Amino acid sequence: MVGYAFMGAAHSQGWRTVGRVFDLPLRPAMNAVCGRDRDAVAAAAARHGWAAAETDWRRLLDRADVQLVDICTPGDSHAEIAVAALAAGKHVLCEKPLANSVAEAEAMAAAAETARARGQRAMVGFNYRRTPAVALARRMIRDGRIGTLRHVRATYLQDWLVDPEAPLTWRLRREQAGSGALGDLGAHLVDLAQYMAGERLAGVSAVTGTFVRERPLPTGGLGTVTVDDAALFTGRFASGALASFEASRVAAGRKNALRIELNGEHGSLAFDLERLNELSFHDHTEPAVAAGFRRILVTDPGHPYLEAWWPPGHGLGYEHTFVHQARDLVHAVAAGREPAPSFADGLQVQRVLAAVEDSAATNCAYTPVPESAPAPVPGSAPVPVADIPT
Amino acid sequence: MVGYAFMGAAHSQGWRTVGRVFDLPLRPAMNAVCGRDRDAVAAAAARHGWAAAETDWRRLLDRADVQLVDICTPGDSHAEIAVAALAAGKHVLCEKPLANSVAEAEAMAAAAETARARGQRAMVGFNYRRTPAVALARRMIRDGRIGTLRHVRATYLQDWLVDPEAPLTWRLRREQAGSGALGDLGAHLVDLAQYMAGERLAGVSAVTGTFVRERPLPTGGLGTVTVDDAALFTGRFASGALASFEASRVAAGRKNALRIELNGEHGSLAFDLERLNELSFHDHTEPAVAAGFRRILVTDPGHPYLEAWWPPGHGLGYEHTFVHQARDLVHAVAAGREPAPSFADGLQVQRVLAAVEDSAATNCAYTPVPESAPAPVPGSAPVPVADIPT
Amino acid sequence: MVGYAFMGAAHSQGWRTVGRVFDLPLRPAMNAVCGRDRDAVAAAAARHGWAAAETDWRRLLDRADVQLVDICTPGDSHAEIAVAALAAGKHVLCEKPLANSVAEAEAMAAAAETARARGQRAMVGFNYRRTPAVALARRMIRDGRIGTLRHVRATYLQDWLVDPEAPLTWRLRREQAGSGALGDLGAHLVDLAQYMAGERLAGVSAVTGTFVRERPLPTGGLGTVTVDDAALFTGRFASGALASFEASRVAAGRKNALRIELNGEHGSLAFDLERLNELSFHDHTEPAVAAGFRRILVTDPGHPYLEAWWPPGHGLGYEHTFVHQARDLVHAVAAGREPAPSFADGLQVQRVLAAVEDSAATNCAYTPVPESAPAPVPGSAPVPVADIPT
Amino acid sequence: MVGYAFMGAAHSQGWRTVGRVFDLPLRPAMNAVCGRDRDAVAAAAARHGWAAAETDWRRLLDRADVQLVDICTPGDSHAEIAVAALAAGKHVLCEKPLANSVAEAEAMAAAAETARARGQRAMVGFNYRRTPAVALARRMIRDGRIGTLRHVRATYLQDWLVDPEAPLTWRLRREQAGSGALGDLGAHLVDLAQYMAGERLAGVSAVTGTFVRERPLPTGGLGTVTVDDAALFTGRFASGALASFEASRVAAGRKNALRIELNGEHGSLAFDLERLNELSFHDHTEPAVAAGFRRILVTDPGHPYLEAWWPPGHGLGYEHTFVHQARDLVHAVAAGREPAPSFADGLQVQRVLAAVEDSAATNCAYTPVPESAPAPVPGSAPVPVADIPT
Repeated sequence: MVGYAFMGAAHSQGWRTVGRVFDLPLRPAMNAVCGRDRDAVAAAAARHGWAAAETDWRRLLDRADVQLVDICTPGDSHAEIAVAALAAGKHVLCEKPLANSVAEAEAMAAAAETARARGQRAMVGFNYRRTPAVALARRMIRDGRIGTLRHVRATYLQDWLVDPEAPLTWRLRREQAGSGALGDLGAHLVDLAQYMAGERLAGVSAVTGTFVRERPLPTGGLGTVTVDDAALFTGRFASGALASFEASRVAAGRKNALRIELNGEHGSLAFDLERLNELSFHDHTEPAVAAGFRRILVTDPGHPYLEAWWPPGHGLGYEHTFVHQARDLVHAVAAGREPAPSFADGLQVQRVLAAVEDSAATNCAYTPVPESAPAPVPGSAPVPVADIPT
Repeated sequence: MVGYAFMGAAHSQGWRTVGRVFDLPLRPAMNAVCGRDRDAVAAAAARHGWAAAETDWRRLLDRADVQLVDICTPGDSHAEIAVAALAAGKHVLCEKPLANSVAEAEAMAAAAETARARGQRAMVGFNYRRTPAVALARRMIRDGRIGTLRHVRATYLQDWLVDPEAPLTWRLRREQAGSGALGDLGAHLVDLAQYMAGERLAGVSAVTGTFVRERPLPTGGLGTVTVDDAALFTGRFASGALASFEASRVAAGRKNALRIELNGEHGSLAFDLERLNELSFHDHTEPAVAAGFRRILVTDPGHPYLEAWWPPGHGLGYEHTFVHQARDLVHAVAAGREPAPSFADGLQVQRVLAAVEDSAATNCAYTPVPESAPAPVPGSAPVPVADIPT
Repeated sequence: MVGYAFMGAAHSQGWRTVGRVFDLPLRPAMNAVCGRDRDAVAAAAARHGWAAAETDWRRLLDRADVQLVDICTPGDSHAEIAVAALAAGKHVLCEKPLANSVAEAEAMAAAAETARARGQRAMVGFNYRRTPAVALARRMIRDGRIGTLRHVRATYLQDWLVDPEAPLTWRLRREQAGSGALGDLGAHLVDLAQYMAGERLAGVSAVTGTFVRERPLPTGGLGTVTVDDAALFTGRFASGALASFEASRVAAGRKNALRIELNGEHGSLAFDLERLNELSFHDHTEPAVAAGFRRILVTDPGHPYLEAWWPPGHGLGYEHTFVHQARDLVHAVAAGREPAPSFADGLQVQRVLAAVEDSAATNCAYTPVPESAPAPVPGSAPVPVADIPT
Repeated sequence: MVGYAFMGAAHSQGWRTVGRVFDLPLRPAMNAVCGRDRDAVAAAAARHGWAAAETDWRRLLDRADVQLVDICTPGDSHAEIAVAALAAGKHVLCEKPLANSVAEAEAMAAAAETARARGQRAMVGFNYRRTPAVALARRMIRDGRIGTLRHVRATYLQDWLVDPEAPLTWRLRREQAGSGALGDLGAHLVDLAQYMAGERLAGVSAVTGTFVRERPLPTGGLGTVTVDDAALFTGRFASGALASFEASRVAAGRKNALRIELNGEHGSLAFDLERLNELSFHDHTEPAVAAGFRRILVTDPGHPYLEAWWPPGHGLGYEHTFVHQARDLVHAVAAGREPAPSFADGLQVQRVLAAVEDSAATNCAYTPVPESAPAPVPGSAPVPVADIPT
């Protein structure tokens, strides 16, 4: 694993727990973690249970006991590490967004394509796909429970930047983070919307905003925020369905409010990450007198991933998405199967994000998303085990 | 009153009840109702409690016992009736949207302006302003409880057009209804967003869609739908706040889901018309450990309009908004005060709707909303009694 | 109508509105209202739309234009007025609880039984049966949607006595009110539980409490509270189902929280008066993976009473229960049918309340509810129109 | 650890994770797990990460590398194992309920008292105290946020016995489980109610029921259920506050619905285990116009246990309560401090459960709970770190 901060801690939980809960065809070993600060990475290794600590990620590529590199660094180093790791014959798991630019993402997707021929796997860490309620929603949509799609409505709202005194960290610098709420939160929205809908966005129209332009630097003084605080966009799916998206870090009182609703001709589904054990479902084929949104408590052994956990009603938490991500990736590696979302999928999300930025820069002009040639539309091909857990 | 269908029934409830509940400076008398079908209008008069029935609205203008004309017809007749009624010296209450075009709305606003000099009042029926929870939210925003505005997020979702067999009524014909979900539902969203925010939209970017193009005619056969099923748009307020709007009649399971959330630097407010006795408020100035969205049950005697109703917890319904509308208009007439929303306000909403249609017709291009010269920004001037009830 | 305070205002709304909304076989006329204070009753008559005002209720019995007496006074005068009115040949609607004691209620039920032979109708004002969501729940239970009943769980929580400075009104004096939260709120719980369940309580075990013993008198000084602040009891239905009840006026933050949940072998239903347009339903016969409590928005034309009101999603309020009560009573009178709940039903509720008080006075000892001989168990006989609206 | 089924898996997660997340004064080592079936326990050891497997729990007592025995077996073996483990000088963590009878619990509490003098710690596994929202509620109550207590309302509802074909497992046999819903679910209710209230129940009145008397045996044929399906009871706190409790396994649609609400003179708190990351709080000292139940998302670093987890809004799950339980016990052992809840606390809960059964057997007669002599009322003494995390 490269990087050991927030994402590193979460991924460590995933790798440590996955084999204790799920039956796996391979047993992951947490052999080495890497970070630039020798003392800090040693402490992180001890804390999170990694057998060794390295200070140069290239050293991981030399180790025979490292077969998979898990990249948890800021976006500006994803491309370099991932391409090198793939070149070195490693499987790769890379945090989202895949990269800070379409060009980087293209290079990564190309590297993954080449490596695939050698039997290597590459996956992007859109972990929210692994929330049982989201996976259940995807399964229900695939099974036709909401019919032809009309609307997707997706917001991801946080409030840690409401305070104008919140410091200017790397997440607020374009050169490291690529973008602000758009890449951090909007990337999840785009991936989830397309994954759940089973189709891709054809184009977008966007507006972005930065409300607080100067923030205190951790080192003292003020610095300039170079990313967006919020990004709003509408979108068209190829099928004609209309979508709206909003990502914001200044929505007071909303802590991690990723909400997505899909309306179809036969029903609707709604999910709220702040209540992640629940899925809301309206079956429009029922008689109107007894119809309504039902709250499915997604904790039944028949629900995705739940066969391995606790009895009904005993909910899971945020970090379980990383356990499930590890499970799905291990299965894909063992089976020699392409994991989802692939680097090609990550590239396609990057193209949507770029289209959003282009539209915002051109007075909201509708901006088509270039087609990614080879990647099949999710859901149109047989869905692999790792994509829709059974 | 002209027209006696859905809106006519609701307005009748308002006029019949208002003096039984509120102390009024004037006593409204339900002297005459008008409709084209003699038998039907006579039955409606008997049912709803109007003393007389007329079949030509011009007859109302001749009656000395008619001092106020309440227009509840489809949008294509609003301008003609309202302008004539004002010319005849009557006060006017006109259902929303004010008109089917900006040109009509301009004529109406001009007529109202002229009539104002003669002491006549003209008001648009944006009745949701009179929901106690909405009026409370406005009061809290005016009092600074959410601080500088960052976001408005407004959706109005219904589902009566999900069924492709739903008939093609006048509401689906552009020549009568002006537009579809946009004018019917979106007009409410725009008015509420601006009313609650206390500021106006500077520009919008929009996309609209019609999913079912042919529908059964009541007379048999198929007809073409000439209005939108759904309209989505983003907007900028003059202050820089960003807004998103969505109006749809094809959101399965959503019956009358007008939801609006406003996020500011000091807090947030959220309202859902399907739970109209509640207002959600997050006070961001509280310590984080005890903060959260609270559900204010807006049934306290200290809440707007509630001093006249039932004890706490005994909720009101949809039609009460028309009682309150009647109350506020009666007060304005008695006091010789301009009611809100005025025809000028209604015109400005019409301009926003026109900008939405223009943007949708030009690939979502950001489209400024022309400034309405004379009308003060709501909230910037002292707010009249009728606007924010005490 | 006798009495014109809170209940009088609510009943007036019901009588005034019912014929404007529903098709009725008879047209109610609001001919006279009665109260002891001449000026106050005259003002109430003018405000609420009664044609005449009387200061002695016996005068109403002499009036030929009074065919139905609606009793909205405190409980200590119910028996005298109702018995006299029935003797005078009037139909009677009496507010709940039917009386302040079983003995009074027995006299009233006997008088009603006698009058019934003469074609007179007598009904108790358990208005919450007329909430569309409650009537829908009853219909679903009758139709077997929850199967064999296991549990009823009912609470009615208010908070207007949390403040120790809240004044000592008639509602806190045993001689006028009969009891406190028990008779005021608990009576509703008992009626609703039995109505919805379609069966009667066999016995109860209870505890009551008064937390604030001395309160300020409206006339100055302190007085002693002689009724309960709260009453909690468990109960057994004849079928073996177990029930729990709690009525309280000191539950801070709960304004009018009448909540009732019924669990059966095939499903569950839950209702909350603070969200009276909603009914929660869990269908336990569905596959577990897609099951969950659904929120039925009870605003569909197919729902009880809703065929006469607004389009879906346009909710009703508290006072509508009185419109529906008037509708059902008018239908019963016109059809010469026994309305429900009858005085016999009211007597049986009184017996449950007496059993609750007996149990509380004997260390919670399980106390059987004496059987009311003639009254059929609601639901076991064909359900009349007025009971379950179509 | 003795036992490795549901509770064993959950405790294993706790022990494995605690040192990876929290800074601990001692490092727990998972040295041995014990079960009767050699192959099964070996598999469990491998799965859950225990270094060794034993088939006789007495062998654990001989091992020098076992300093703490974690008892996860059914209730009928708790007393024997715990008393022996304490006699052997081990610290003990014992699952709830402490025992199947008061006599056993007394023996265990006496053994713990003796061992305490030798520096050994004994704790009962009422893990729900470690839910951050519950611990926060306790902290707020201790800090006076709800004032003098009036009501506690607690239900724990599940539905796995709704199906009459659900098999007759050990949990439905009195000789192994002690009781049914009462001991399994009601024990949690009693502990939580007293813990949160900071005071103890003085007496109870109860009714219990078994709806399905015969169930299929796993071995074929039918067996008799000898425990309750549901237990309902009311209770009095020493302070005069009134409480109601309901535990049921036949509440269709309720999966793990542990709900508890406390109403005090200054406010109210409510918690629902199915939404365990939330706490509902009404501050009754606020002006009525802006007051209401607020939803505190208990995921802030200032909330109990949360300083070690994820950013706000990234919720925890059921199993985290076991991580926190391990953390608190490790701190108590390291500090030589009495953990809470102690065996004396567990004994007192057992006495409440016995009083419930006695009352149910004597027609709901009010049954006092015998005072446990030495144990301080929780909250009356300075609250130790392990009790209320900071």
